[in-house]
Amino acid sequence: MRRKLEEARVARLATVDPAGRPHIVPIVFALLEDLLVTAVDEKPKRTHKLQRLENVRANPLVAVLVDHYEEDWSRLWWVRVRGDATVHEEGQERDRALEALAAKYSVYRERPPIGPAIAIIAEDWLGWSAKE
Amino acid sequence: MRRKLEEARVARLATVDPAGRPHIVPIVFALLEDLLVTAVDEKPKRTHKLQRLENVRANPLVAVLVDHYEEDWSRLWWVRVRGDATVHEEGQERDRALEALAAKYSVYRERPPIGPAIAIIAEDWLGWSAKE
Repeated sequence: MRRKLEEARVARLATVDPAGRPHIVPIVFALLEDLLVTAVDEKPKRTHKLQRLENVRANPLVAVLVDHYEEDWSRLWWVRVRGDATVHEEGQERDRALEALAAKYSVYRERPPIGPAIAIIAEDWLGWSAKE
Repeated sequence: MRRKLEEARVARLATVDPAGRPHIVPIVFALLEDLLVTAVDEKPKRTHKLQRLENVRANPLVAVLVDHYEEDWSRLWWVRVRGDATVHEEGQERDRALEALAAKYSVYRERPPIGPAIAIIAEDWLGWSAKE
């Protein structure tokens, strides 16, 4: 499960807004020991409005999904991780997240994200595979 | 947006559980006028335990995401739909959903899903593209 998650290039982040409604957005991410990290590529002034950050601050429990689809359904699989998320506007936690993201994505090496990082404690893992 | 959603082969369904926690699962789906339909491939006896169905019954507002990823990030896009979901254990609504799913997925033509259908009123659309 960990390998599948690590190798995936895109995941989806599900959060719950202050009114209790689901929110979902695709993310690029990296695994950093027990943390799943992602970052926001928006100017700090704009990020206070960003729904995913507002949601995480109000309700830190989030879910992240990676999945594999192809027309041969015997090859489908997915991995889901849940855990508490923290927004890091700056500092060492943000730096470490950005480093891990840059190691995984060349676009981030050329143009690092300018907004906060989100670090999710990956503690509740669930995997499914059509083959099993 | 509608064409992109229609053509996507897999989406992710985000729901909120009765404790207010986010839940996310990949789905195959079809668009049927203003409804986004999906089905559960589990025996009816088992589906009362299925988290997505329990969640929809407790909290009908759901979010569905399709996204496109490639290493050239100037080509990224996603489409998100939110709306109220209803579980159809049987009857005409379930039949219509299964027909639309079978028209889109050959696997379902050979082996129709045996569980309930979920129909989501696709009313709150949001699309994003790196090119715009």
